[in-house]
Amino acid sequence: MTRETYEEYVKKALEMYEKAGIALTEKEKESVEVVDWGLDMLETMGLEIITYINTDRVCAKEMVLLPGQTCAEHMHIPTNGQEGKEETFRVRYGKCYLYVSGEGKKEDIQGYIPPTDVSVFHEVVLNPGEQYTIMPETWHWFQAGPEGAVISEFSTRSTDETDIFTDPRLVRATVIDE
Amino acid sequence: MTRETYEEYVKKALEMYEKAGIALTEKEKESVEVVDWGLDMLETMGLEIITYINTDRVCAKEMVLLPGQTCAEHMHIPTNGQEGKEETFRVRYGKCYLYVSGEGKKEDIQGYIPPTDVSVFHEVVLNPGEQYTIMPETWHWFQAGPEGAVISEFSTRSTDETDIFTDPRLVRATVIDE
Repeated sequence: MTRETYEEYVKKALEMYEKAGIALTEKEKESVEVVDWGLDMLETMGLEIITYINTDRVCAKEMVLLPGQTCAEHMHIPTNGQEGKEETFRVRYGKCYLYVSGEGKKEDIQGYIPPTDVSVFHEVVLNPGEQYTIMPETWHWFQAGPEGAVISEFSTRSTDETDIFTDPRLVRATVIDE
Repeated sequence: MTRETYEEYVKKALEMYEKAGIALTEKEKESVEVVDWGLDMLETMGLEIITYINTDRVCAKEMVLLPGQTCAEHMHIPTNGQEGKEETFRVRYGKCYLYVSGEGKKEDIQGYIPPTDVSVFHEVVLNPGEQYTIMPETWHWFQAGPEGAVISEFSTRSTDETDIFTDPRLVRATVIDE
């Protein structure tokens, strides 16, 4: 993505954190990660993240899905001799449609089918104060409702670099063209 | 503590979560733990807790210190063959005076000396959006500023039952007299 696009989405994410009443330090505001999986289609496929802490044992993040944004389907696999990442998503603001392995048909979901490959359709709808725990090696993708969503993530160590995606076109690391 | 006292402090805690803009489910509101360490002096010594998740690997809690309340000095030790609990405190609302092992004199702290034994005085002041990570086997105690504090905790598995306290009078499990 371009620097301009990056700055634009950081600004949008900061507005969402503010709406949700999430207090952030100036340093954190400068650390927002804008994830586009190399697709450059942030209106539909994107996720904004502030990582509060990521040690060998524990990770916590505050994530934003802007209205219309979807986080691509992926899975956390064993890394560096440890089990894959286990994560709990807790919605703080807005609404999140979460899809995980299990019963559920593509044609019955409340969200929209994103432009990247998805394979699981067990729907979990999370409103503010609601949460769901995703165990390692579980396919999952998630999407904002019409107001977007701010989502706390509580997890084991984050090892994004080993995430695997259903859609082979995707790459996890954000590249900003200068 | 009496059932009446318990209900009174749950109500006060829920008011604090509301001030902080923390969304909670009805089930969570009914699960507030009021910790008094068997002292029955909640105006000075107390902590209110909602546990969001506590698995073998990850724990997240939302804690309240009411104005004037102090959490007693304690330490997390190895439990069930795992290292002691590692925890990050992140202030969401109010102010927290955190005391951990390290440089710092009793007479220089901004908080007040609580009525239970304390031995560490390295002061960390946390305002909204600020956080601090406490590694296992570190003595720590913490106190609210004048408006109280709402504090998110991100940690490894919580094993409160093996906490050790500096003051031998304290017990971790809350007992409600019926």
